[in-house]
Amino acid sequence: MIYNNLPKFAADNERIYDKRDEHTPDNWIKRNPGLIRLTGKHPLNAEPSPSRLYDEGYLTPNSLFYVRNHGLVPKLDWDTHTLEITGLVDNPRIFSMDELAAFPKRQFPVTFPCAGNRRREVNLFKQSKGFNWGSAGVSTAVFGGVMLRDLLLACGVRIPKEDEEDWHVHFEGAEMLPNGIYATSVSYQYIMDPRNEVLMSYEMNGELLPPDHGFPVRLLLPGIIGGRMVKWVKRIFVSKTESDNWYHIYDNRIIPSHVEPEEAIRDKWWQNPSYIINPMNINSAFAYPEEGQIVPVSQESFKCCGYAYTGSGNRITRVELSLDDGKTWILCNIDQQIPSPITKKYWAWAIWSYDLPLKKLLQCKEIIVRAWDSTLNTQPVNITWNILGQMNNAYFRLKVNLEENSNGEMNYRFEHPCLTANIASGWMVPKKDKQGSEPSIKTTPKVGKAYTQEEVNKHNKPDDCWIIVKEGVYNVTDFIKLHPGGADSIIINAGGDCTEDFVSVHSTNAHNRLKKYRIGYLVTSTQNEVENALALSPKKGRKLSSRL
Amino acid sequence: MIYNNLPKFAADNERIYDKRDEHTPDNWIKRNPGLIRLTGKHPLNAEPSPSRLYDEGYLTPNSLFYVRNHGLVPKLDWDTHTLEITGLVDNPRIFSMDELAAFPKRQFPVTFPCAGNRRREVNLFKQSKGFNWGSAGVSTAVFGGVMLRDLLLACGVRIPKEDEEDWHVHFEGAEMLPNGIYATSVSYQYIMDPRNEVLMSYEMNGELLPPDHGFPVRLLLPGIIGGRMVKWVKRIFVSKTESDNWYHIYDNRIIPSHVEPEEAIRDKWWQNPSYIINPMNINSAFAYPEEGQIVPVSQESFKCCGYAYTGSGNRITRVELSLDDGKTWILCNIDQQIPSPITKKYWAWAIWSYDLPLKKLLQCKEIIVRAWDSTLNTQPVNITWNILGQMNNAYFRLKVNLEENSNGEMNYRFEHPCLTANIASGWMVPKKDKQGSEPSIKTTPKVGKAYTQEEVNKHNKPDDCWIIVKEGVYNVTDFIKLHPGGADSIIINAGGDCTEDFVSVHSTNAHNRLKKYRIGYLVTSTQNEVENALALSPKKGRKLSSRL
Repeated sequence: MIYNNLPKFAADNERIYDKRDEHTPDNWIKRNPGLIRLTGKHPLNAEPSPSRLYDEGYLTPNSLFYVRNHGLVPKLDWDTHTLEITGLVDNPRIFSMDELAAFPKRQFPVTFPCAGNRRREVNLFKQSKGFNWGSAGVSTAVFGGVMLRDLLLACGVRIPKEDEEDWHVHFEGAEMLPNGIYATSVSYQYIMDPRNEVLMSYEMNGELLPPDHGFPVRLLLPGIIGGRMVKWVKRIFVSKTESDNWYHIYDNRIIPSHVEPEEAIRDKWWQNPSYIINPMNINSAFAYPEEGQIVPVSQESFKCCGYAYTGSGNRITRVELSLDDGKTWILCNIDQQIPSPITKKYWAWAIWSYDLPLKKLLQCKEIIVRAWDSTLNTQPVNITWNILGQMNNAYFRLKVNLEENSNGEMNYRFEHPCLTANIASGWMVPKKDKQGSEPSIKTTPKVGKAYTQEEVNKHNKPDDCWIIVKEGVYNVTDFIKLHPGGADSIIINAGGDCTEDFVSVHSTNAHNRLKKYRIGYLVTSTQNEVENALALSPKKGRKLSSRL
Repeated sequence: MIYNNLPKFAADNERIYDKRDEHTPDNWIKRNPGLIRLTGKHPLNAEPSPSRLYDEGYLTPNSLFYVRNHGLVPKLDWDTHTLEITGLVDNPRIFSMDELAAFPKRQFPVTFPCAGNRRREVNLFKQSKGFNWGSAGVSTAVFGGVMLRDLLLACGVRIPKEDEEDWHVHFEGAEMLPNGIYATSVSYQYIMDPRNEVLMSYEMNGELLPPDHGFPVRLLLPGIIGGRMVKWVKRIFVSKTESDNWYHIYDNRIIPSHVEPEEAIRDKWWQNPSYIINPMNINSAFAYPEEGQIVPVSQESFKCCGYAYTGSGNRITRVELSLDDGKTWILCNIDQQIPSPITKKYWAWAIWSYDLPLKKLLQCKEIIVRAWDSTLNTQPVNITWNILGQMNNAYFRLKVNLEENSNGEMNYRFEHPCLTANIASGWMVPKKDKQGSEPSIKTTPKVGKAYTQEEVNKHNKPDDCWIIVKEGVYNVTDFIKLHPGGADSIIINAGGDCTEDFVSVHSTNAHNRLKKYRIGYLVTSTQNEVENALALSPKKGRKLSSRL
């Protein structure tokens, strides 16, 4: 049926073959250059800027919807792809995509974030094992698909005895990753509850899913973090036991703050079912003012605005600003928040705004935003560190700097806590790192043999593979097959400098492992050259240019 | 069916006819004197002490389950009481209790709080319109009853069109209150979802509901605050519109902090559907150490313990203590948390404990407890004031005082923020109020005519009704029928001193209204007499003895 109250889909014409994908396995995919890449060239992990995300309106165009890929994008075909449903069902079946799409279609707007959204704030507080999402690792689209419940019923799914432990529905994607396939499981009862509107989705904003979002079919769990929504699904099975897939156990879990990585593995913290992440928690962020935005003090008011979201189909009931560190709060307008047409659950975000009279900022150093939802819970004041740096939903704090320009005019300059990876701006970023160079990019001591760039460039094949990381030269030929992130992501950098890619995704542990492959250092001439390698990002402060 | 994993019901033999009920309309009800009364004699609003609540175990005995009554308890009979189901149903029906009980029975443990639980902390921060619940206005029982969904289906409940606005199910109780009957409405879709396990409940811990808890039948909404669960239900109807009952609109709503009472009414803040309270938010409290408990520094460790709860069927996943104002957190044990046998939802609380090595307290002034649930949300740091002072779930803070006794031994003395109404102890209670007299009980200026106690006593009838409040004498005969709290609660005090009852439930506004009925003041002899009227509460500091 047609739902009258769904927002309209906007045109999405900005997709191109991006130069950065040229030498990667994803070079067949058109992407939007407006996405900011967080982990180098490959795999694609990317988000738009907060202001771009906001400007696009209630629905994020598919090409700007944040992307979290663990490896290369499987090249699948609508006509040949199949979805198998098996396990505790009376009639196991293998569906073609046409058969799937013949089931009644549901569609409704859904917002979901990466569980790592706002992780860079966590990492600037204390480094976690994860790369630097800004605050726009969250997006909204109208997803269309078939109710998974209907598919399972069509396969004669069995029914647990009334008093029996809950069963589990398992999802397996088409990816082959270093830690096996990407898979997870979700409560059987949750899936079977029609009010949870769990879809096998094949449509996004009125078009087929783009490859980065799971074409031809992904799991869609409204109200739940993106990491649980397996993309490129090949197989679903119903079981009495929970998944023991690596990604189900060692990712998307919040281990209590005091537990460090080694202890977590040794004492089996990852295996504690209490620590799994499913629903999104309550979160909110500013889109405007933007990071670094300058507004004259003489201006009467400024429209502060942004987005807020929560999990479980709950409604965002309040968004509030504080100019006095939480002593008092100003109520913002909720401009748009669209429930699902059938269940009336709020699977999608709230767009908020407040027209702030600027005289209120004269004594104010910081503007805080927080949201509340219909459970009467709100966001925490402070960051709660955890090994994976996930689910950060602490108050979003914007600094207000009163500054005089060269004409003697007074301005407010606003600062976000930080932006995405490799953009050295924001009040949480240490001052020394804002002078031009990125904090994590430091040179390696000049030990061993000296190599020129040209010499390194020759070792650019899988069976003869050198790389440069922080001006150290490494022969990683023997390591390629051992790389937890997969061989591909090394091979595409063979013979080149992969400092940016390396530091954005690797822990101290990986830095230490790398050391044993060091054969020498790179000859660089002067500091000037380093400076030349840095270019001002088109919009936001200084950023390392791509080395390719 | 019999569920094997339900906790056992304990004997509940402490119910007596309480002297305090003697002259009230509730004098036919046996009650547990272990309940602490919060609003004087009548109506009954009462909670146990936190340690008593904890000591009773996972299930609270019915007689100690907190009570929130708005007026007298309707005297209903199993054999004659009926429940009408009407509105948008094809076959409206009137059920006898036997007919109700013939439907399949569900039973599972449910925790629910009064939305005002922990309100005294709010009131000590800034006075709200509500009386002083401590932190034990929450209890747990195994409720038994019929799924409301089944009843509605038996009446041929109609089904909204797919894209239609949500309908509402209305509940009306048997009470006649000053603002009309007690009624509310709940989302139709919510009620019809079998995973929400909404019951018409007639059983509590294996016995029929006690009168104070809605005998013979009440609404039970697992995961939702008590105020929504209408007791003594007479009529249910299905409608396209939401309830406009006074208690649905003007109670159990959280209006943003900056809104004061007059503004809320003038600008229709109460009518904003965003501000309704349904699910419980995340909360936790200490049972031990108790308020005022003294523990020798030389003792090796102390078992801190308490309870934590949340709404929506979510699981309490972590309970944590901080000894350094939230900088670091210690993980507590979750000793017991029992899901519903069928849906596996966590409708009931988590019992937590941690064996604290006392040497850790040597530099510690405060122990904080907070809980997290499976939505990855947690409790807020600070109290969020609101007109009704509801849903306070700020960190629960226990003060640690290091003290030397007369033998030169060092002890820790622990302080809760506060206890219930009229118990002048706890670190939030102003020091001046701990000297023996209760803060709100101050004498009125001696203006007008002087009356002796004996003279006042003679005016003890509805058509000739004087009362004493704070040593002022008032002729309230003409006011009885205007009293927003009902005539009964004045008449039971006719000719007597109702200071305690009055101050515990009335706002400044009511104090001002009372003034116009003043006819004089009470003659008291010496300060000694006042002192004599004060008696030490059996367990906790000084408390005004009952004046009857």
